[in-house]
Amino acid sequence: MAYKGLAKKLLEKESIKVGDKIRVKKDNISYDGMLLDRPEDADDKHLVLKLDNGYNIGVEIEDARIELIEEGSKPEIKLPPVDVERNPELPDISIISTGGTVASIIDYQTGAVHPAFTADDLLRANPELLDIANIRGKAIFNILSENMRPEYWVEAANAIAKEIEDGVQGVVVAHGTDTMHYTAAALSFILKTPVPVILTGAQRSSDRPSSDAHLNLISSVIAAKSDIAEVMVCMHASIDDRSCHLHRGTKVRKMHTSRRDTFKSINTTPIAEIKDGKIKILREDYRKRDLVELEVRDKIEPKVALIKTYPGINPEILEYYIDKDYKGIVIEGTGLGHCPEDLIPAIERANEMDIIVAMASQCLNGRVNMNVYSTGRRLLGAGVIPVADMLPETAYVKLVWALGQSSDPETVKSIMLENISGEIEDKSSLRHFQG
Amino acid sequence: MAYKGLAKKLLEKESIKVGDKIRVKKDNISYDGMLLDRPEDADDKHLVLKLDNGYNIGVEIEDARIELIEEGSKPEIKLPPVDVERNPELPDISIISTGGTVASIIDYQTGAVHPAFTADDLLRANPELLDIANIRGKAIFNILSENMRPEYWVEAANAIAKEIEDGVQGVVVAHGTDTMHYTAAALSFILKTPVPVILTGAQRSSDRPSSDAHLNLISSVIAAKSDIAEVMVCMHASIDDRSCHLHRGTKVRKMHTSRRDTFKSINTTPIAEIKDGKIKILREDYRKRDLVELEVRDKIEPKVALIKTYPGINPEILEYYIDKDYKGIVIEGTGLGHCPEDLIPAIERANEMDIIVAMASQCLNGRVNMNVYSTGRRLLGAGVIPVADMLPETAYVKLVWALGQSSDPETVKSIMLENISGEIEDKSSLRHFQG
Repeated sequence: MAYKGLAKKLLEKESIKVGDKIRVKKDNISYDGMLLDRPEDADDKHLVLKLDNGYNIGVEIEDARIELIEEGSKPEIKLPPVDVERNPELPDISIISTGGTVASIIDYQTGAVHPAFTADDLLRANPELLDIANIRGKAIFNILSENMRPEYWVEAANAIAKEIEDGVQGVVVAHGTDTMHYTAAALSFILKTPVPVILTGAQRSSDRPSSDAHLNLISSVIAAKSDIAEVMVCMHASIDDRSCHLHRGTKVRKMHTSRRDTFKSINTTPIAEIKDGKIKILREDYRKRDLVELEVRDKIEPKVALIKTYPGINPEILEYYIDKDYKGIVIEGTGLGHCPEDLIPAIERANEMDIIVAMASQCLNGRVNMNVYSTGRRLLGAGVIPVADMLPETAYVKLVWALGQSSDPETVKSIMLENISGEIEDKSSLRHFQG
Repeated sequence: MAYKGLAKKLLEKESIKVGDKIRVKKDNISYDGMLLDRPEDADDKHLVLKLDNGYNIGVEIEDARIELIEEGSKPEIKLPPVDVERNPELPDISIISTGGTVASIIDYQTGAVHPAFTADDLLRANPELLDIANIRGKAIFNILSENMRPEYWVEAANAIAKEIEDGVQGVVVAHGTDTMHYTAAALSFILKTPVPVILTGAQRSSDRPSSDAHLNLISSVIAAKSDIAEVMVCMHASIDDRSCHLHRGTKVRKMHTSRRDTFKSINTTPIAEIKDGKIKILREDYRKRDLVELEVRDKIEPKVALIKTYPGINPEILEYYIDKDYKGIVIEGTGLGHCPEDLIPAIERANEMDIIVAMASQCLNGRVNMNVYSTGRRLLGAGVIPVADMLPETAYVKLVWALGQSSDPETVKSIMLENISGEIEDKSSLRHFQG
């Protein structure tokens, strides 16, 4: 047990150990839950409980009374034998971990959730993987996805490329869900891939009965064996734990803070559904396996800002980025692609300085159309690039990438208007609205 | 005809007049459409056509060939007699116009769409209104909704209050759709209203066969007569032109650039549906008519910023707003309410300076829960206010308003955490996901 100081003293006094069900009473509140081991960032003034709803909370022990409700049964994971010998009948799949909860397993002896990054750990937690692929596990970093940065997209892309060069049939990338769609879009632009690249994650950690980690991981490995050679996100298709969707990396967005089916394809349909271990193709316009040579186009320009507009936004914020020598600005405007007219002088200045300004819509669904109203036409006149049915997040990622591909503004503009990785679709998007 | 110069010359040469169907050929493109009258902002180098898809475009006439396809029939609107005498059997409803397309009518003689702000104009375009209410029309301003500002929310609130004081049974506010949800939230906080206040608009102008203006306006007047004394948005419930939803002003968002059913209640259900002229209540927890005294709480603090975070966001943007003496910042973070950890020092600095920092989620659906992961806990420690299931836009508007209600930071924080106008709901929001 890693509790120390005051916490340790209190627990020992009541003969409570990690895994026991306890009650912590404080003022008028009482918490019942399983005592978990101390997480890394805890001091000696808190206990960590797993509540019945599955969430872990830290409770300050000052003035608290603690009692044992029931001794923990300390279930132990039966470790299955890990087949370290490569099965020549099965394809090789790499699982690359960047952090996040999908590749974590709980250690019931200590109650701690820890990352499981080796192939052995993954196979112990998900032994079914043994029947579908030879798994190579590799951790490239271990960060919370809210801390992702454009530089890490490049690092991840190169790590994936190395696995593909080594001959694997597909790559699964374990990733925190918060910014998974930004990374998926980035990998879609950076990598020209002849094999599937599947990002997956979990909304609930694998120590919770409602965890989505297992199905997401199994489905991702199945997807990685498929003939869909694109960068995709594989996550739950609905709240039941039965099927996953494969979303195109440039058209997907996290749309709910906590639901397992949080990722949705916007303005388009998912590429496939995976259910009962089988892939059902939902659209035929995907890139097939081995049609392109692997290419890593990893030059980027991180000096790009994403600005959401709103009534009362200060136009000086645009001047700020211009003065800071930013190379690109994506405006997340309103409706068909509008913003307050008092931003237009700054946009004109940006355009004169060859700073690329692109316009997406905070509606998320539908297409930007800047020819309908006068504000849109004025913005077009000021040099703003309309990004059609692209998500604002994808437009931001694409501009970071496009500015790395060329230093000529006209070339960058034409890259923004061209469909590179399925981010722009020709057809009307009306029918795809989640209405 | 208001065409002049080069355009006038060309049109006269071909004996073409406004309203005629013409073809404009240029290089390899040809446009067929009805010639509209010159909009205010046109020069003499463009013609304005209404295409068959209903959109108006400007075509540059340089190097263009123009031909007449068919003479226009110049349909004239039959002006119904306007009953200027008040019908004592019917309730009085005010329609206040702020701009936008809902209250506009086309003049077929000139082809121009012009705003119809007087009661007479409204009744001529929508004679059914005569059967359901005595209409008082009033234009308070005429701006595109992307140009709305917090100061105008105050102005609109006071204009509405004046109508209520004058004894009308309900108020309809015609508003552009781009920022209607921001204004709806603002009016929800500013006004304590004993009668219905209904914002409505149109996604397509009333000269288009697919216009939603008529049904939205009629439904809004029906809603304004109801016993639901809240600020609401009344817009199409689906793409067919048959029913409208009444959305609570603090829980609604424009979710599609062009669909008629673009407005959706997020994390909750609409209050009512209006179909075939009848209201069907969908939930009983609304404020009934005449339960409160009219109150206008119109002090606001516009020095508030809304910042959407993303991988690669520069933490200096927070310092910028702090240095500019902003009083509040709403972060539209990722997932359960996270942001890159390198923003935390600036957030701590803001907190020390009594600048209120609130956290909403760019997922839009679901609730912020900052107790689950370490980043969330660190942000709570830095003084960030989690806004539960509030939309980021509503959180921004609420902070602008809350900072006007008190200069004491602790009071402002408690206002942000309290449910004032239905913006925070207790129950889990899982089932309301548009999945």
